[in-house]
Amino acid sequence: MQLFYTPDIDAASSTYFLNEEESKHGIRVLRLQPGDEVQLIDGKGNFYTAAITDAHPKRTQLQIISVQKEFNKRNHYLHIAVAPTKNIERLEWFLEKATEIGIDEISLIISQRSERKEAKVDRLNKIITAAIKQSIKAYHPVLNEPVALSKLLARPFDGQKFIAHCEPGDKAALKDQLKTQGSYLILIGPEGDFTPKEIADAINFDFKAITLGESRLRTETAALEACFEVNFLNRV
Amino acid sequence: MQLFYTPDIDAASSTYFLNEEESKHGIRVLRLQPGDEVQLIDGKGNFYTAAITDAHPKRTQLQIISVQKEFNKRNHYLHIAVAPTKNIERLEWFLEKATEIGIDEISLIISQRSERKEAKVDRLNKIITAAIKQSIKAYHPVLNEPVALSKLLARPFDGQKFIAHCEPGDKAALKDQLKTQGSYLILIGPEGDFTPKEIADAINFDFKAITLGESRLRTETAALEACFEVNFLNRV
Repeated sequence: MQLFYTPDIDAASSTYFLNEEESKHGIRVLRLQPGDEVQLIDGKGNFYTAAITDAHPKRTQLQIISVQKEFNKRNHYLHIAVAPTKNIERLEWFLEKATEIGIDEISLIISQRSERKEAKVDRLNKIITAAIKQSIKAYHPVLNEPVALSKLLARPFDGQKFIAHCEPGDKAALKDQLKTQGSYLILIGPEGDFTPKEIADAINFDFKAITLGESRLRTETAALEACFEVNFLNRV
Repeated sequence: MQLFYTPDIDAASSTYFLNEEESKHGIRVLRLQPGDEVQLIDGKGNFYTAAITDAHPKRTQLQIISVQKEFNKRNHYLHIAVAPTKNIERLEWFLEKATEIGIDEISLIISQRSERKEAKVDRLNKIITAAIKQSIKAYHPVLNEPVALSKLLARPFDGQKFIAHCEPGDKAALKDQLKTQGSYLILIGPEGDFTPKEIADAINFDFKAITLGESRLRTETAALEACFEVNFLNRV
């Protein structure tokens, strides 16, 4: 399968031109010929089958053969808000793995104990794009710009809201709280965890405190565990 | 918590000397003083609390205060046999994450489509050791030398045996097959998957073919998904 990510494609159109970079890759590297079939994903849920009509190395023309809408659409919506890790590679791993397993939206939160207060969203987004191509996902997860935890807490969210933390206190297992086929916003703290004040604030905003098992997990592992659990519990 | 990995400790003894490297780290870096408490794990399930009696920078002496046996012992045994990834960092990432989440034994299998036929077990073992210290695990997962798939298939294993693959055919979900609180051996193939012949051989040796969900997962993600599912299903 030769899969291209084409976010600018018009679902109503019957032809499409690959951009210069993709054209070069398709014709010079993959050596595609007129008549060869390729697949396109637009990141919005459409999965296209197309054929090369003009193998131009800068402006390859495709004829759209078929469109499959809502390709492998999930039965739930998962938004994970995670503090960027000090070592950015750990966050990158999380983004790649979460994309493979299934996620809809990621927010990067800046909290009191965050050691990293910024992240290059453009660069991180490229990792997500590579992962959707590798794992053949028609939906591109949305990665939001870093946001202060206090701002995120105050934003309305139509679904279940959870905060995972390691402080003592009343916590439920995610699996005992989650209502399947719903929408979920899950907060994962930085290396030093959320502060007790942040946890209390979240609870005031109707976030439910949860635990992700007995193991002491790194930030990115906790975020991935949450992603695993949500997908697993929604698997039919 | 100042945690040291001391695999050579004698559980019956009341004193222990840190080796030269750990002594240097404890005294020169952590600046531990006589009377300070430290924790030790031996990789065999024992968790020790000890106090510094001689802050010698090459041969720090400790007095053992207490031993907790079978510290956080799991209620199951998980052995994952995975083909080393072409990019060794992906395998390293799996070993770190699986150790955090919970695993007992890892075998590296060489199969027909393996792009990598060797791996430096010593180096990989250091990653596991760092992960048990980070996540405070008293049991050190065992990492075996690379083994040919055909050899591993023929070995006796007292527990449930599974092979995860992407070929068509009769496959069950792991969650529908797994008997909790048991022992499991799960095979995960290389980037190009197992061959149909290898899958048939495994089935002849009573491995059950399984799927880990609908997503197309990379080798190391599939191995981690299996690890996650086994731990999750055994969580009480």
